[in-house]
Formats: sequence, structure tokens, C-alpha cells
Amino acid sequence: MTKQFGTGNNPEENIMVKKRHISLPGGFTASGVKCGIKAADVEDLAILAADKAVPAAILTTQNQLVGAPITWCRSVLPRGHGRCRAIVVNSGNSNVCTGKTGLRNAKAMASRVAELIGAKDQHILVGSTGVIGHRLPMGKIRQGIDKAIASLGTSADDAVLRGIMTTDTHEKSAVAKAHIGRRSFTVAGIAKGSGMIAPNLATMISLITTDLAVTPAALYKALRAATAVSFNAITIDSDTSTSDMVAAFASGAVGNKPITAKSPGWTAFAAALEQVCRSLARQVVADGEGATKLVEVAIRGARNDAEAEIAARAVADSPLFKCAVNGADPNWGRIAMALGKSAARIAPEKLNIKIGGVTIFARGTGRNFDATKVAKHLSGQDIRVDCDLHLGRGQFTALTCDLSRQYVTINADYHT
Amino acid sequence: MTKQFGTGNNPEENIMVKKRHISLPGGFTASGVKCGIKAADVEDLAILAADKAVPAAILTTQNQLVGAPITWCRSVLPRGHGRCRAIVVNSGNSNVCTGKTGLRNAKAMASRVAELIGAKDQHILVGSTGVIGHRLPMGKIRQGIDKAIASLGTSADDAVLRGIMTTDTHEKSAVAKAHIGRRSFTVAGIAKGSGMIAPNLATMISLITTDLAVTPAALYKALRAATAVSFNAITIDSDTSTSDMVAAFASGAVGNKPITAKSPGWTAFAAALEQVCRSLARQVVADGEGATKLVEVAIRGARNDAEAEIAARAVADSPLFKCAVNGADPNWGRIAMALGKSAARIAPEKLNIKIGGVTIFARGTGRNFDATKVAKHLSGQDIRVDCDLHLGRGQFTALTCDLSRQYVTINADYHT
Repeated sequence: MTKQFGTGNNPEENIMVKKRHISLPGGFTASGVKCGIKAADVEDLAILAADKAVPAAILTTQNQLVGAPITWCRSVLPRGHGRCRAIVVNSGNSNVCTGKTGLRNAKAMASRVAELIGAKDQHILVGSTGVIGHRLPMGKIRQGIDKAIASLGTSADDAVLRGIMTTDTHEKSAVAKAHIGRRSFTVAGIAKGSGMIAPNLATMISLITTDLAVTPAALYKALRAATAVSFNAITIDSDTSTSDMVAAFASGAVGNKPITAKSPGWTAFAAALEQVCRSLARQVVADGEGATKLVEVAIRGARNDAEAEIAARAVADSPLFKCAVNGADPNWGRIAMALGKSAARIAPEKLNIKIGGVTIFARGTGRNFDATKVAKHLSGQDIRVDCDLHLGRGQFTALTCDLSRQYVTINADYHT
Repeated sequence: MTKQFGTGNNPEENIMVKKRHISLPGGFTASGVKCGIKAADVEDLAILAADKAVPAAILTTQNQLVGAPITWCRSVLPRGHGRCRAIVVNSGNSNVCTGKTGLRNAKAMASRVAELIGAKDQHILVGSTGVIGHRLPMGKIRQGIDKAIASLGTSADDAVLRGIMTTDTHEKSAVAKAHIGRRSFTVAGIAKGSGMIAPNLATMISLITTDLAVTPAALYKALRAATAVSFNAITIDSDTSTSDMVAAFASGAVGNKPITAKSPGWTAFAAALEQVCRSLARQVVADGEGATKLVEVAIRGARNDAEAEIAARAVADSPLFKCAVNGADPNWGRIAMALGKSAARIAPEKLNIKIGGVTIFARGTGRNFDATKVAKHLSGQDIRVDCDLHLGRGQFTALTCDLSRQYVTINADYHT
């Protein structure tokens, strides 16, 4: 169920291209290597580096329990933005719940990279994903870092993409090319899901680069806005990892005057970044554990956007609804129930629900509908649910997948 | 996995007996009949009646979308308590999302019962559970009511228990006998789950009777307290039905002076009621759709009881945790993750987690533990998780079941 890129309802989709692996924007290099953290013979460490310390922004998990790498990154960028030179990410071990040793190891990864590329420790971000509760094999990691630094190149190829993966079944990348005046620029991103956990906790890590010059504060602002409608609008099972991270870097290689939130180029840059994040988020959901369908739950007419989000998530996280989608059952009762149980205000007599564009529930009552048409929609891979609460102007669209037997199998049969 | 009754950690469990069907406390009669709402040849309508209008209390779903019977019951007991003569419950059709016709039909059910037993419409409660969005077959229901009234008896036998069931696989009942001074009294209850939905929405309905005299306000207060630690402490899949209802009736047949919250007998009555509710809640979870294990998640040391409840529910509702339990995997990472994502305050460095009494996580770090012992515990049917947040005195215990492939099968393959 690899998704055709840019099939969303976004007016800017024409600026996008998707490839298996991408040329990095100017000013960046990357590499992915095998260093033996994972038992399988696959890449398990990747480095993304800028040619110099460049504006960087990071968003990290809202889970109160965080891995040592998250703690390290927050110390590097305490306000979420600043300047960084590189990020090193390993898979196979998340360095979570590893106490003080874990923090020392995260810092040691940064120091090793810093030493080899001639940067400050405080300019190196660190990410780890994989099993929790185990100490990092630092000998292997040091060798891996050495090897990765030696093989940095200008393409985010399969080795880079795989280096950050855990149980992902597909590599995930997206690139947007657009213009500000006559100057063309690129925003490129790679991501790992979430298949959704394995081995232990799901981790979503995404690394985004652009060749534009953007101030750190503006980069952070754009990243927050893009994440709100992409990575923060997806849900596979309502669980939140201790290691989730989205990091963005702006090399300035195109030579523009640094973009701020008031620059003429702001809108074009923010739109391109949002497109890349939306594409990556979609790829993450499509590769959710056991997912067979991608489900968009669009709420409008809520009292405000915050309530629209609560309502959308109540539906998108409802196991009953997700099972119904898996079974292609037009069970609008479960949608109505999920809306009703949410903390968002609902007036049943004003509520309208559509599946695949067909109204099945209006003003408190189920409607006669074309069951064949709805069944056909639900048998596809792209499911759309629209709910109008008719109470205000709040809106939010959540993206999720169905709940399948395969999800249970993956998560019950995996052994810690 | 029918549970042996009273295996909880409750000091009062010696007062309890469980039977497949129960003798009703004095002053009540009941019956269950087949009236053809369901396609299968099974009971689908039950009536519980008091000999006269007696103190009654009701708690109804918190879902904003409610069925017509809930709306009717709230008009009968707007403050949650008052006097009632009887309740009629049908299964096979929940009379939800049926508009004004639905409300007329709920009222018509009450009127029919009232007429036959010589009571006021406003003294008759109504419950419905089953498919949503379909009009009640009122002809069949009227005939069913006539038949049920004609066959009222003093036992809550299988016919009564089955009359309120949907996809439940077991009949559910509990009875407590205790004393206030020399006077013995009985609290008896029956319930339906939640298998967890089928056909459309889960509905939890429980009817409780006692032969004590209790004022309506005291009955309501005791019912609220008992429900908080029983029916409101269970979760199968975080979904909340539009029809959930717990109703209690006090006949006063034992001839005591009506109990208030200040009476000497209050504690004994409230304890007996709580025991019956706890037993029924446990039976509901044990019969959750696809459940193979019963899981108790006990939180202590939260900043307050409200946060303890939030934390307990975060774990009990986590699909990843529930899958791990299904697979008997000692995956404490998922417990820590669920606590961390909750809105309850957690300090990872103070957090302690036990599975089956064995400490596996302490002060932010996983511990070496006796894996054989924990695996043996997880392979059983009664799973216990204890988390001490070490932040205060708040506590709450949630009861849930595991998430199995069978749950998905039931909920994906059912067709509306």
C-alpha cells in the first residue's frame, strides 16, 4: 500500500516529487552504515551533516519519560532552535531507561562526531531508536560513527534511510522544489515510523534539510506549524514514543538573505516544508503496524480548532472504528459514539457524518444511503470520513490506519 | 475464563456468593421473554418490577450522544434518584439515533408496562441495547411486555439474565448477603456487557436490587460511590456506549428505618452494594470481546486520586500494552511509555513498576528480574501491574482485559 505521493487535497502538491532516495539540498552530506547493533546484516547508524554549523530546529516527544538522546538534544537546543552541525542516529537500541550511563553514552556519540568533523559537542544532535532498557554497545557505535563519517556523500540513499529504520517496511523520503522569486530551493526529508513500535516503543524520527537560509527562530516556527498538521495529526494507536523527534536544518547554500517569518519568501518556504512533512507523515501511517488502509478523519464545524482536534483524534483512535474500517463495515454508529465520548462539544441533532462523501448520518439520525457506493469506498485503501459538527468554525484532519489482526500479531508475538 | 467470585483484594469478600441466577431480594419480581426482536430464538426482553413505587437511583452514560431510553430515564429521574416501580429492558435494538420516533417508542414501552401493572408512566424506566439506527419493532415489543408482565417471578433466572444480553457469552449476576444489627439483608445485581459492542455499540446495563429501605438520595450516593470503583474503573477498549446505565432499587421489604448516609447501617449497605458492583464489573471485563486475561492496573503515589485514575487508564487503554499482555510479554517499556504519555504527572526517576509483584523497573531504569517468574504470571489469566509514582497519596485501580486477534475479528467481521 505504498501511497502515490501528493494525493491529498493540497493545492501545492504540484511542487512535490517523491523518490526512493533523494539528493540532499546543497550544503549537506549523509551516510548510513552497518555497525552491528542489530543482529540482522542491515544499516543501523546514519549521520546527516552540514558543511558548517547552520540554523537548526527540533521538536521532541511530549512523553514525560524520554530517552537519553532527547535529553541531550534538549540541552543542545534548549529553546528548540539554534545552530547545529550534524545529527547522528542509531537504530536497534533506543537508549531509553538507561539512567546516567545512557546520558553519558548519548554525549559520547556527539563527542565522537564532533571530534571527527571538527565541531563542538554542543553542535551535534543525537537520536536513537529500538529496544529500550539496554545499554548502547559503545564500541560498535564508535566504529560505526568513524565509518559513517568516512563515507559521507551528497545523497540520502537507501543506506541512510535504512540506518534510521526499525520495523519500517518501506524507506520514507520526500522532497519539495519551489521558487522564491527566481531563486529555486529544495526542502528534503527522510523519516522512520513506527511499525508502530517494534521492538519496544514506536519511534518517529524525521530529519529535514533545506538549502535556503532561514533564521533559527523562523525555522522553528515553520517546523512547528508544519508538524501540527502532519506528524502531530497522525495516530496509529494513540501511543506516544519516548524518542519521537523531528529536526530541521537550513544550510543557506542558495545564498538568499536569511528568511524570517516576515520575509516575502516565508510563505513559499513554509508551504514547501509543510508539504514534505505531510508526505512523510502519510508514509509513516501507511506503514503503520498491520495497516491495510489509510484513513482521513476530517472534522469541521467544531466550536474551535482545539475541539476539532479532540474530536478527530477520538474517532481516529477508537479501536472499534478502526476495526470497522478494517472489515470495510459502514458502521457510522461507532463514529458517532467516538465523537460523543470525546471532550469536544457535540450536539447530536446538528451532527452530520459522511463516509467517502456519502451522507450516512444527519441531524441525530441515520439516513438511508447507497450502501454499495459506501462499501466500495471502504473496500479501497484510502478512506475518508467527514464530520460536520455545525457548532462553529473549528477544523482539524487526523490521519490514521485501520486496526488489523496483523497489528495484534506483531505486538503480541514480539518478545522483549 | 469465568472468574471465581470474590477473588479481589477486598476484606469484605466473605459476604459474597455468586450464582448463575439469583433469588431476588424481597419486594421484587422479574421475568425474561422471547419477543422476536433478535433473529435468534433467545430471550430479548426483561422486566424487573417492585411491588410498589420504591426508592430508585440511576447513573447513565457520559457519552454526549445518548439513546432515546437514556433520555426517557433522565426525564423520569432528573436528579438521578426518586421513586420507580419497574424497568423494562430489550436487547437486539438500542433505539439510538432514531430521532423523535425513538423517544415516542421509549415512552410507549414505559406506558405499556405502567398500564399493565397499574403504575404511572413516570415510574417506569426503560433500557434498550443492540443495533443502532433502527426503529424498534413496537408490535413485537408490546407483545413481549404483555408476556413478561404475565410471567413475573421472584427469581432472576437465565431468562431474565439473557433477556438483557447482546453478545455476552456468559450470564452475569452477583449477590451479597450481610447484616445490619440482627437484620439480614440482600443486595443482588445482574448485568450485561459488552462483548464489547456487537452488534454496534457496547452497552453496559446493570440492574441492582436490595430489600433494605434506603432513601433515594442515599441510594444514589451509594450507587455513585460503588460505580466509581467498579463499572467506572473498567475499560475494554476506551470506547463508551450511548446506552450505558446502572439502576438500583430499594424495596424496604426487610422493614428497617430508611437508611441515609448518616445511619449506622450505611457502611454495611454501601459495602455490600460495592461488592456486588465490583463483582459484576469484573464479570463484564472477563467477558470482554476476545478477552483471554483479566488485567488489574493499580496506581499509587500519584499527586491525587484523579491523576492516579488518568495514569491507570492510560496503561489500561494502551493497545500496545494490551497486546503485550495477550502475548505474555513482560514489556515494561510499554507500561512506562503509557504512564509517560498520560496527563498525570510522572517523575521517571521516582517511578516503580511491578508485574505480578516482581519489580522490573525502578527509579528510571529497568531492573534485572526473575524472567521465569514474571513469564509464569503473565501466562496466567489474572494479571496484576502495580505502579508507584512516589509523588503523593493518590491511588486508583483500573480493570481491563488483553487485546487479542479475536477482538479484531469480532469487530472487523461484524457487518452492520
